Amino acid sequence: MQLTKFSDYGFRVLIYIALLPANRLANIDEISEAYGISRNVVNKVVHQLARGGIIQTKRGQRGGFKLLKQPETINVGDIVVLLEPTLNIIDCTSPHCNIVPACRLKHIFNDASEAFVRELKNYYLSDVIKNKNVELRTILEIE
Amino acid sequence: MQLTKFSDYGFRVLIYIALLPANRLANIDEISEAYGISRNVVNKVVHQLARGGIIQTKRGQRGGFKLLKQPETINVGDIVVLLEPTLNIIDCTSPHCNIVPACRLKHIFNDASEAFVRELKNYYLSDVIKNKNVELRTILEIE
Repeated sequence: MQLTKFSDYGFRVLIYIALLPANRLANIDEISEAYGISRNVVNKVVHQLARGGIIQTKRGQRGGFKLLKQPETINVGDIVVLLEPTLNIIDCTSPHCNIVPACRLKHIFNDASEAFVRELKNYYLSDVIKNKNVELRTILEIE
Repeated sequence: MQLTKFSDYGFRVLIYIALLPANRLANIDEISEAYGISRNVVNKVVHQLARGGIIQTKRGQRGGFKLLKQPETINVGDIVVLLEPTLNIIDCTSPHCNIVPACRLKHIFNDASEAFVRELKNYYLSDVIKNKNVELRTILEIE
Protein backbone atom coordinates (compact mmCIF):
# COMPACT_ATOMS: atom_id res chain seq x y z
CA MET A 1 0.00 0.00 0.00
CA GLN A 2 1.66 3.18 -1.18
CA LEU A 3 0.97 6.72 -2.22
CA THR A 4 0.85 7.31 -5.95
CA LYS A 5 3.93 8.81 -7.57
CA PHE A 6 1.77 11.88 -8.20
CA SER A 7 1.45 12.64 -4.47
CA ASP A 8 5.07 11.74 -3.87
CA TYR A 9 6.20 14.27 -6.48
CA GLY A 10 3.65 16.75 -5.15
CA PHE A 11 5.45 16.72 -1.81
CA ARG A 12 8.85 17.07 -3.46
CA VAL A 13 7.59 20.12 -5.34
CA LEU A 14 6.08 21.69 -2.19
CA ILE A 15 9.26 21.10 -0.20
CA TYR A 16 11.29 22.84 -2.91
CA ILE A 17 8.98 25.86 -3.05
CA ALA A 18 8.84 26.10 0.75
CA LEU A 19 12.63 26.41 0.88
CA LEU A 20 12.88 29.31 -1.58
CA PRO A 21 13.68 32.78 -0.27
CA ALA A 22 10.62 35.02 0.17
CA ASN A 23 9.29 36.50 -3.06
CA ARG A 24 11.35 34.24 -5.29
CA LEU A 25 9.08 32.40 -7.75
CA ALA A 26 9.79 28.78 -8.60
CA ASN A 27 9.72 27.40 -12.13
CA ILE A 28 9.15 23.98 -13.64
CA ASP A 29 12.67 23.62 -15.03
CA GLU A 30 14.56 24.16 -11.78
CA ILE A 31 12.37 21.72 -9.84
CA SER A 32 12.58 19.11 -12.57
CA GLU A 33 16.35 19.48 -12.52
CA ALA A 34 16.74 19.57 -8.73
CA TYR A 35 15.01 16.20 -8.30
CA GLY A 36 15.77 14.61 -11.65
CA ILE A 37 12.09 14.12 -12.47
CA SER A 38 10.33 14.93 -15.73
CA ARG A 39 9.06 18.43 -16.53
CA ASN A 40 5.77 16.93 -17.57
CA VAL A 41 5.08 15.41 -14.15
CA VAL A 42 6.16 18.55 -12.31
CA ASN A 43 3.83 20.54 -14.55
CA LYS A 44 0.84 18.31 -13.76
CA VAL A 45 1.55 18.41 -10.04
CA VAL A 46 1.88 22.22 -10.05
CA HIS A 47 -1.42 22.49 -11.92
CA GLN A 48 -3.20 20.38 -9.28
CA LEU A 49 -1.58 22.28 -6.37
CA ALA A 50 -2.77 25.53 -7.93
CA ARG A 51 -6.31 24.13 -8.39
CA GLY A 52 -6.29 23.14 -4.74
CA GLY A 53 -5.35 26.65 -3.61
CA ILE A 54 -1.99 25.67 -2.17
CA ILE A 55 0.18 27.52 -4.66
CA GLN A 56 -0.30 30.60 -6.78
CA THR A 57 0.96 30.80 -10.34
CA LYS A 58 1.99 33.88 -12.29
CA ARG A 59 2.18 33.73 -16.05
CA GLY A 60 4.67 35.39 -18.34
CA GLN A 61 8.40 35.53 -18.84
CA ARG A 62 9.02 36.49 -15.23
CA GLY A 63 6.31 34.11 -14.08
CA GLY A 64 6.44 31.08 -11.86
CA PHE A 65 4.72 29.94 -8.70
CA LYS A 66 4.89 30.24 -4.93
CA LEU A 67 3.06 29.04 -1.86
CA LEU A 68 -0.22 30.83 -1.21
CA LYS A 69 0.17 30.38 2.56
CA GLN A 70 2.95 29.92 5.07
CA PRO A 71 4.31 26.32 5.41
CA GLU A 72 3.08 26.41 9.04
CA THR A 73 -0.53 26.51 7.80
CA ILE A 74 -0.33 23.99 4.93
CA ASN A 75 -1.61 20.71 6.33
CA VAL A 76 -0.04 17.41 5.26
CA GLY A 77 -3.41 15.62 5.48
CA ASP A 78 -5.00 18.21 3.21
CA ILE A 79 -2.17 17.81 0.69
CA VAL A 80 -2.70 14.03 0.53
CA VAL A 81 -6.47 14.40 0.14
CA LEU A 82 -5.85 16.89 -2.69
CA LEU A 83 -3.24 14.84 -4.55
CA GLU A 84 -4.30 11.20 -4.11
CA PRO A 85 -6.73 10.00 -6.78
CA THR A 86 -8.47 7.84 -4.16
CA LEU A 87 -8.34 7.03 -0.47
CA ASN A 88 -10.73 4.13 -0.93
CA ILE A 89 -8.16 1.63 0.25
CA ILE A 90 -9.90 -1.40 -1.18
CA ASP A 91 -11.31 -1.40 -4.69
CA CYS A 92 -14.36 -3.65 -4.89
CA THR A 93 -14.99 -2.77 -8.53
CA SER A 94 -11.89 -3.89 -10.38
CA PRO A 95 -12.59 -6.68 -11.01
CA HIS A 96 -16.11 -6.37 -9.69
CA CYS A 97 -16.48 -8.31 -6.44
CA ASN A 98 -19.80 -10.10 -6.17
CA ILE A 99 -20.05 -10.02 -2.37
CA VAL A 100 -20.06 -6.19 -2.17
CA PRO A 101 -23.69 -5.98 -0.96
CA ALA A 102 -22.95 -8.08 2.13
CA CYS A 103 -19.26 -7.48 2.82
CA ARG A 104 -18.20 -5.12 5.64
CA LEU A 105 -14.58 -4.81 4.53
CA LYS A 106 -15.11 -1.51 2.75
CA HIS A 107 -16.45 0.13 5.92
CA ILE A 108 -13.57 -1.22 8.00
CA PHE A 109 -11.02 0.15 5.54
CA ASN A 110 -12.84 3.48 5.43
CA ASP A 111 -12.34 3.71 9.21
CA ALA A 112 -8.65 2.93 8.80
CA SER A 113 -8.27 5.43 5.96
CA GLU A 114 -9.85 8.12 8.16
CA ALA A 115 -7.42 7.24 10.98
CA PHE A 116 -4.57 7.58 8.48
CA VAL A 117 -5.62 11.06 7.34
CA ARG A 118 -6.40 12.11 10.95
CA GLU A 119 -2.82 11.28 11.89
CA LEU A 120 -1.43 13.23 8.93
CA LYS A 121 -3.53 16.24 9.94
CA ASN A 122 -1.24 16.64 12.96
CA TYR A 123 1.53 17.73 10.62
CA TYR A 124 2.23 20.77 8.44
CA LEU A 125 4.58 21.43 5.56
CA SER A 126 6.80 23.27 8.06
CA ASP A 127 7.22 19.98 9.99
CA VAL A 128 8.41 18.21 6.85
CA ILE A 129 11.29 20.67 6.46
CA LYS A 130 11.71 21.50 10.18
CA ASN A 131 15.21 22.19 11.54
CA LYS A 132 16.63 21.00 8.28
CA ASN A 133 16.14 24.08 6.13
CA VAL A 134 19.79 24.73 5.59
CA GLU A 135 20.60 21.12 4.85
CA LEU A 136 17.67 20.67 2.44
CA ARG A 137 18.55 23.93 0.73
CA THR A 138 22.11 22.72 0.28
CA ILE A 139 21.07 19.36 -1.18
CA LEU A 140 18.71 21.07 -3.60
CA GLU A 141 21.30 23.75 -4.37
CA ILE A 142 18.85 26.55 -3.61
CA GLU A 143 20.57 29.90 -3.15
CA MET B 1 -3.55 4.92 -2.19
CA GLN B 2 -4.91 1.40 -2.29
CA LEU B 3 -4.24 -2.11 -1.12
CA THR B 4 -2.61 -4.37 -3.67
CA LYS B 5 -4.83 -6.81 -5.51
CA PHE B 6 -2.98 -9.53 -3.62
CA SER B 7 -4.39 -8.38 -0.26
CA ASP B 8 -7.79 -7.73 -1.77
CA TYR B 9 -7.96 -11.31 -3.07
CA GLY B 10 -6.55 -12.57 0.21
CA PHE B 11 -9.57 -11.16 2.01
CA ARG B 12 -11.95 -12.63 -0.56
CA VAL B 13 -10.36 -16.04 -0.02
CA LEU B 14 -10.56 -15.75 3.78
CA ILE B 15 -14.20 -14.65 3.67
CA TYR B 16 -15.03 -17.67 1.53
CA ILE B 17 -13.27 -20.11 3.85
CA ALA B 18 -14.81 -18.51 6.96
CA LEU B 19 -18.29 -19.16 5.57
CA LEU B 20 -17.79 -22.87 4.95
CA PRO B 21 -19.46 -25.38 7.27
CA ALA B 22 -17.17 -26.75 9.98
CA ASN B 23 -14.75 -29.43 8.76
CA ARG B 24 -15.40 -28.77 5.11
CA LEU B 25 -12.11 -28.06 3.31
CA ALA B 26 -11.95 -25.39 0.62
CA ASN B 27 -10.22 -25.85 -2.69
CA ILE B 28 -8.66 -23.52 -5.25
CA ASP B 29 -11.15 -24.26 -7.99
CA GLU B 30 -14.31 -23.43 -6.07
CA ILE B 31 -12.91 -20.11 -4.79
CA SER B 32 -11.61 -19.16 -8.23
CA GLU B 33 -15.05 -19.89 -9.63
CA ALA B 34 -17.04 -18.21 -6.84
CA TYR B 35 -15.30 -14.86 -7.36
CA GLY B 36 -14.35 -15.17 -11.01
CA ILE B 37 -10.64 -14.70 -10.28
CA SER B 38 -7.75 -16.74 -11.65
CA ARG B 39 -6.69 -20.04 -10.05
CA ASN B 40 -3.12 -18.85 -10.15
CA VAL B 41 -3.79 -15.81 -7.94
CA VAL B 42 -5.91 -17.81 -5.50
CA ASN B 43 -3.11 -20.34 -5.29
CA LYS B 44 -0.51 -17.68 -4.45
CA VAL B 45 -2.74 -16.09 -1.84
CA VAL B 46 -3.48 -19.44 -0.19
CA HIS B 47 0.24 -20.18 -0.06
CA GLN B 48 0.94 -16.90 1.72
CA LEU B 49 -1.97 -17.35 4.17
CA ALA B 50 -0.61 -20.81 5.03
CA ARG B 51 2.90 -19.39 5.52
CA GLY B 52 1.43 -16.79 7.85
CA GLY B 53 -0.30 -19.42 9.99
CA ILE B 54 -3.82 -18.28 9.18
CA ILE B 55 -4.90 -21.32 7.20
CA GLN B 56 -3.92 -24.97 7.26
CA THR B 57 -3.53 -26.95 4.06
CA LYS B 58 -3.98 -30.68 3.59
CA ARG B 59 -2.47 -32.37 0.54
CA GLY B 60 -3.92 -35.20 -1.50
CA GLN B 61 -7.07 -35.97 -3.44
CA ARG B 62 -9.29 -35.18 -0.48
CA GLY B 63 -7.07 -32.25 0.44
CA GLY B 64 -7.80 -28.55 0.64
CA PHE B 65 -7.49 -25.86 3.29
CA LYS B 66 -9.31 -24.38 6.24
CA LEU B 67 -8.84 -21.65 8.84
CA LEU B 68 -6.40 -22.53 11.61
CA LYS B 69 -8.32 -20.39 14.11
CA GLN B 70 -11.85 -19.11 14.62
CA PRO B 71 -12.78 -15.98 12.59
CA GLU B 72 -13.27 -14.18 15.93
CA THR B 73 -9.53 -14.46 16.59
CA ILE B 74 -8.17 -13.64 13.12
CA ASN B 75 -7.23 -9.98 13.19
CA VAL B 76 -7.80 -7.77 10.13
CA GLY B 77 -4.67 -5.71 10.90
CA ASP B 78 -2.57 -8.87 11.06
CA ILE B 79 -3.96 -10.03 7.71
CA VAL B 80 -2.99 -6.76 6.04
CA VAL B 81 0.51 -6.84 7.53
CA LEU B 82 0.89 -10.42 6.26
CA LEU B 83 -0.42 -9.81 2.75
CA GLU B 84 0.77 -6.31 1.81
CA PRO B 85 4.24 -6.26 0.25
CA THR B 86 4.91 -2.92 1.99
CA LEU B 87 3.30 -0.47 4.38
CA ASN B 88 5.97 2.13 3.68
CA ILE B 89 3.45 4.56 2.31
CA ILE B 90 5.97 6.73 0.51
CA ASP B 91 8.74 5.24 -1.58
CA CYS B 92 11.83 7.46 -1.48
CA THR B 93 13.85 5.04 -3.59
CA SER B 94 12.01 4.80 -6.88
CA PRO B 95 13.20 7.01 -8.38
CA HIS B 96 15.75 7.77 -5.70
CA CYS B 97 14.92 11.04 -3.95
CA ASN B 98 17.99 13.13 -3.20
CA ILE B 99 16.56 14.88 -0.12
CA VAL B 100 16.05 11.64 1.86
CA PRO B 101 18.77 12.47 4.44
CA ALA B 102 16.99 15.66 5.50
CA CYS B 103 13.32 15.03 4.73
CA ARG B 104 10.90 14.18 7.56
CA LEU B 105 8.09 12.97 5.30
CA LYS B 106 8.95 9.29 5.72
CA HIS B 107 8.60 9.53 9.52
CA ILE B 108 5.29 11.36 9.23
CA PHE B 109 3.91 8.71 6.89
CA ASN B 110 5.20 5.96 9.18
CA ASP B 111 3.08 7.48 11.96
CA ALA B 112 0.06 7.55 9.69
CA SER B 113 0.65 3.98 8.53
CA GLU B 114 0.80 2.85 12.17
CA ALA B 115 -2.48 4.66 12.88
CA PHE B 116 -3.98 2.85 9.88
CA VAL B 117 -2.96 -0.61 11.12
CA ARG B 118 -3.95 0.28 14.71
CA GLU B 119 -7.47 1.05 13.52
CA LEU B 120 -7.64 -2.22 11.57
CA LYS B 121 -6.55 -4.13 14.67
CA ASN B 122 -9.95 -3.31 16.19
CA TYR B 123 -11.54 -5.70 13.72
CA TYR B 124 -11.60 -9.45 13.17
CA LEU B 125 -12.53 -11.67 10.26
CA SER B 126 -15.82 -12.34 12.09
CA ASP B 127 -16.63 -8.60 11.83
CA VAL B 128 -16.13 -8.68 8.07
CA ILE B 129 -18.83 -11.34 7.68
CA LYS B 130 -20.90 -10.34 10.76
CA ASN B 131 -24.70 -10.69 10.61
CA LYS B 132 -24.42 -11.37 6.93
CA ASN B 133 -23.45 -15.02 6.98
CA VAL B 134 -26.57 -16.26 5.29
CA GLU B 135 -26.53 -13.55 2.65
CA LEU B 136 -22.83 -13.98 1.85
CA ARG B 137 -23.25 -17.75 1.70
CA THR B 138 -26.09 -17.31 -0.75
CA ILE B 139 -24.14 -14.96 -3.00
CA LEU B 140 -21.19 -17.33 -3.04
CA GLU B 141 -23.48 -20.36 -3.47
CA ILE B 142 -21.93 -22.12 -0.50
CA GLU B 143 -24.05 -25.02 0.70
